Amino acid sequence: DLASKDEYPALGEEDKLWVRIRQEARWDSVKEPVLASYLYSSILSHGSLERALAFHLGNKLSSSTLLSTQLFSLIIDTFMEDDGIRRAVREDIKAVKGRDPACNSYSHCLLNFKGFLACQTHRVAHRLWNQGRQSLALALQSRVSEVFHVDIHPAAKIGSGILFDHATGLVVGETAIIGNNVSILHHVTLGGTGALGGDRHPKIGDGVLIGAGAIILGNVKIGEGAKIGAGSLVLINVPPRTMAVGNPAHLVGGKDSPAQLK
Amino acid sequence: DLASKDEYPALGEEDKLWVRIRQEARWDSVKEPVLASYLYSSILSHGSLERALAFHLGNKLSSSTLLSTQLFSLIIDTFMEDDGIRRAVREDIKAVKGRDPACNSYSHCLLNFKGFLACQTHRVAHRLWNQGRQSLALALQSRVSEVFHVDIHPAAKIGSGILFDHATGLVVGETAIIGNNVSILHHVTLGGTGALGGDRHPKIGDGVLIGAGAIILGNVKIGEGAKIGAGSLVLINVPPRTMAVGNPAHLVGGKDSPAQLK
Amino acid sequence: DLASKDEYPALGEEDKLWVRIRQEARWDSVKEPVLASYLYSSILSHGSLERALAFHLGNKLSSSTLLSTQLFSLIIDTFMEDDGIRRAVREDIKAVKGRDPACNSYSHCLLNFKGFLACQTHRVAHRLWNQGRQSLALALQSRVSEVFHVDIHPAAKIGSGILFDHATGLVVGETAIIGNNVSILHHVTLGGTGALGGDRHPKIGDGVLIGAGAIILGNVKIGEGAKIGAGSLVLINVPPRTMAVGNPAHLVGGKDSPAQLK
Repeated sequence: DLASKDEYPALGEEDKLWVRIRQEARWDSVKEPVLASYLYSSILSHGSLERALAFHLGNKLSSSTLLSTQLFSLIIDTFMEDDGIRRAVREDIKAVKGRDPACNSYSHCLLNFKGFLACQTHRVAHRLWNQGRQSLALALQSRVSEVFHVDIHPAAKIGSGILFDHATGLVVGETAIIGNNVSILHHVTLGGTGALGGDRHPKIGDGVLIGAGAIILGNVKIGEGAKIGAGSLVLINVPPRTMAVGNPAHLVGGKDSPAQLK
Repeated sequence: DLASKDEYPALGEEDKLWVRIRQEARWDSVKEPVLASYLYSSILSHGSLERALAFHLGNKLSSSTLLSTQLFSLIIDTFMEDDGIRRAVREDIKAVKGRDPACNSYSHCLLNFKGFLACQTHRVAHRLWNQGRQSLALALQSRVSEVFHVDIHPAAKIGSGILFDHATGLVVGETAIIGNNVSILHHVTLGGTGALGGDRHPKIGDGVLIGAGAIILGNVKIGEGAKIGAGSLVLINVPPRTMAVGNPAHLVGGKDSPAQLK
Repeated sequence: DLASKDEYPALGEEDKLWVRIRQEARWDSVKEPVLASYLYSSILSHGSLERALAFHLGNKLSSSTLLSTQLFSLIIDTFMEDDGIRRAVREDIKAVKGRDPACNSYSHCLLNFKGFLACQTHRVAHRLWNQGRQSLALALQSRVSEVFHVDIHPAAKIGSGILFDHATGLVVGETAIIGNNVSILHHVTLGGTGALGGDRHPKIGDGVLIGAGAIILGNVKIGEGAKIGAGSLVLINVPPRTMAVGNPAHLVGGKDSPAQLK
């Protein structure tokens, strides 16, 4: 059981984050009547954060041939079977609010951040993939790519406390691994180098920050706390707490004595 | 009152741009019956450019929980309250038609250019933001990011005569300022450098051209008439009428004697 | 008549690719009842690959003012008039399945790959453009840009056996030409250099591979079998079977003795 009292409410406990999100939604619906019906159907009418998120994703990812009610059921069932996903949803919301100065409330993240919404759908698709439900996982990947412009292979492993900022154009390959508390800006690629299969995508350590437009290719290791400069092309391992910049990327301070980040 | 006879018709005056757009739509609906119903509902059934644009944006930005009729009312009301926006809409259409060789008619810009449509929605969101209606402004920003793949913070200030060409992936941060007659290609970022708040985004002067994929970070100043090469990473001020290229970007001709553009 | 027995079934012949796609869809609908209704309406209820693809595109590209039934008719009629398009559809599906290690079935490509779907819609728009139906071709381009985040001018010429991998942000200009068996990753630009008209976009030879985020500008020639590195900015001709990398791009091995790719 991954749930802890600090991070995720046990049955019967108060869910402080959800209480807070509802307060924000009530406040906004009083201040802004145009949004009242939207906030009611998206947040206030639901009994839990999981149900609100599943409803919101079901609506956004539905199409004329994939019904929102089917998607809602699929997503809420997956959430309810997996404590780890429910905890990660909460850690991601806190990460977005905490790390993005343009995020002014938890409900803003829940409703409006396509990087957050794409990441949570990936968590569902990843679980389905691991259960052998590949065609369904791939259908979700495809809808996320169409609706949120984020293309994450369902096999990719992603930790918690994730910020996908702006998110447009993010591509994450099949054998990529992303650790905890990672921040990735838009237009970032964690891609392959043309190998025909096997373990061919980057491994991103805990606490890494990857700037806008960075392209990281191949089975390289980005150590914990490293920073990848915007617009970099990274084809090498990057040690922990160092910074790589440029096209092709080099370590700031040089390969033999890279400058240590605090 | 920003309206001038040249740019924006006063009450009772003929609106030459709107007359022209209707002529184009009539022409196209005769030539192409498949589009007749679309052109009628999007252009020919409306009494003004503002109403046609508000209807078109309301349709495109609507969702199962944000109704097109609500969005139409919100957008048309904002247009009608703000002469500056109505003038900017017209200057932007002329800029797209004048500067993009692939734009063959005003109605094509009005109906099909997602950069134009994203920019006009931003003008509405920016006014709402300045009126303290932040949650509504952020909801519009989010829909524009989902539907047009353009993510502009509602607080960003944008002049008129703007061409966002292709537009996919454009990101403009909270404290960015874009002057008049600016052309920006797709995948351009006007972003921050990780500062936690405050004035942290680029200031783009009048007449600047920013090439595809350029990333400009931090509170730097791009002087009027400057050109930023495609794929550049710009972390420095760029003087007026000079060109910056490369990753990281340098001034063409050197820092001490940059080549002057005509 | 471009059809050959190997590539495209003549009237009365069995269509092996379509038989295979139906088998995959049946298999998936048994394994995954959530998808059964979707697979039935998208694949199993149709009598040919062309009808299934036209239905799927009609659904995805429709809007409140452009009906899916109109789009279906337009697309299926175009397919039925043009053997070359029907053959290219099949060669593209085989190219995606053959070259993309993340593509595990033909039906996955048909249903889920936005690069494939964008390319087939472009083939329809290109035919309409050449028939003088410019406003309709431009409306299709615009919907593809909104729905699949791929912006290809309808006048651009594209061969067959094409893989647009991930596809988000791909931009192809009006006078660009793409040969056969070309693979292009996401965020690639085949753009102009600011010329006001005329022949101003790249020409891509057969068998070229263009990495993620590469920007190729101007009327330059990328020779057959060449490779363009991810994140490159290419402003020069690239000879056949050579590799160009960097910003700005240079030939690997040098201009005078570039290394030959196998």
